[in-house]
Amino acid sequence: MKAVVLLSGGLDSVTALYHVQQSLEVVGALSFDYNSKHNHKEIPFAVWHCQKLGIPYQIINLDFISRLFKSDLLISGGDIPEGHYEDESMKSTVVPFRNGIMLAIAAGYAESIEASGLVIAAHAGDHAIYPDCREDFMSPMEEAIHHGTYNQVQVFRPFIEMTKTQIVSCGDELGVDFKMTWSCYKGGEIHCGLCGTCVERREAFKDAGVADPTPYEVDL
Amino acid sequence: MKAVVLLSGGLDSVTALYHVQQSLEVVGALSFDYNSKHNHKEIPFAVWHCQKLGIPYQIINLDFISRLFKSDLLISGGDIPEGHYEDESMKSTVVPFRNGIMLAIAAGYAESIEASGLVIAAHAGDHAIYPDCREDFMSPMEEAIHHGTYNQVQVFRPFIEMTKTQIVSCGDELGVDFKMTWSCYKGGEIHCGLCGTCVERREAFKDAGVADPTPYEVDL
Repeated sequence: MKAVVLLSGGLDSVTALYHVQQSLEVVGALSFDYNSKHNHKEIPFAVWHCQKLGIPYQIINLDFISRLFKSDLLISGGDIPEGHYEDESMKSTVVPFRNGIMLAIAAGYAESIEASGLVIAAHAGDHAIYPDCREDFMSPMEEAIHHGTYNQVQVFRPFIEMTKTQIVSCGDELGVDFKMTWSCYKGGEIHCGLCGTCVERREAFKDAGVADPTPYEVDL
Repeated sequence: MKAVVLLSGGLDSVTALYHVQQSLEVVGALSFDYNSKHNHKEIPFAVWHCQKLGIPYQIINLDFISRLFKSDLLISGGDIPEGHYEDESMKSTVVPFRNGIMLAIAAGYAESIEASGLVIAAHAGDHAIYPDCREDFMSPMEEAIHHGTYNQVQVFRPFIEMTKTQIVSCGDELGVDFKMTWSCYKGGEIHCGLCGTCVERREAFKDAGVADPTPYEVDL
């Protein structure tokens, strides 16, 4: 089956790209540039992996998000909170209905290039504080995409039963070059080591027993 | 309830804007510019009605659609077919998953401006040839939007039980200035009178017994 992959350039989606190549014909990968603080750090890694694997790649510019939406994840927003992802403070990093927007655009793109699969690297650890990561969003969204496209585009979530630790193990087995992935929401020169995504990234490598190649500003 | 209205500048959505003002507080209206042949004709009418009613208005630029999607509705596509909407040839005017994309973006925007309602002028005559107009798309899409937003955005389809003829009657009662609306997919100087949307528009005025103020290139 021909499929399109949502590829941010983060650890999860890059690993998903390598993983689904074993079972699907990946005919396109999409990154979304919505002027988050870390888009300019993660997108070059998405480009790098697609070039390496010979996968057609597109950047979708969502300039209206920075213009009209409110979120501390955006350059236009406030400071990124530090600490664990589960903390209430991380709510400020929600970009309203971001997964819905990305999936809808990717569904239209998939139909346009005659692909009938769509891959998103949502995983078991995706965060209940984000309403558009929850099953009661994802399940009807998948149904809407399936029925709303001529070729009945099917959404795949290969990591939905996996933790981030298991994704690191999976990527390690597939030979994913993790230093060519980006997580930090702050989008500085190197990973800050303290924001929710950095904390989660460090823990995943540690728990998986895989050497973490990421330089962090603050060592713990 | 505060609500956002999807406003193309066509007859249906303009009438919906006036109609829902009776029951909802309209805090924003959105048009989507995706380089269709008729965007440049309909958007000025959307602007005009919002200025008249004092409603905050935004144009969302979806340049990626003209760059990456295929449809004869787009400037980049082939000729607009003539004849009835139901005809198989109208399939070429489908923009893949357009309603999904517009609803998803509008849901995120509604959440960003603390609105919890979203209005789309889908109606009973919306066309089974367009998969993203069918109930088996709309219903799960509405559920995904409801569960995927903090403020549980609710989608309203005030015209879903109405025919286009009934929408014309409704707009007539509300004093909608129909000559300040656009339907024709060809996007020429005036309405062509022959494409699916023009045929439908003419028939709706005739069947409603409302004078059609639209100048058409070809009189029937």
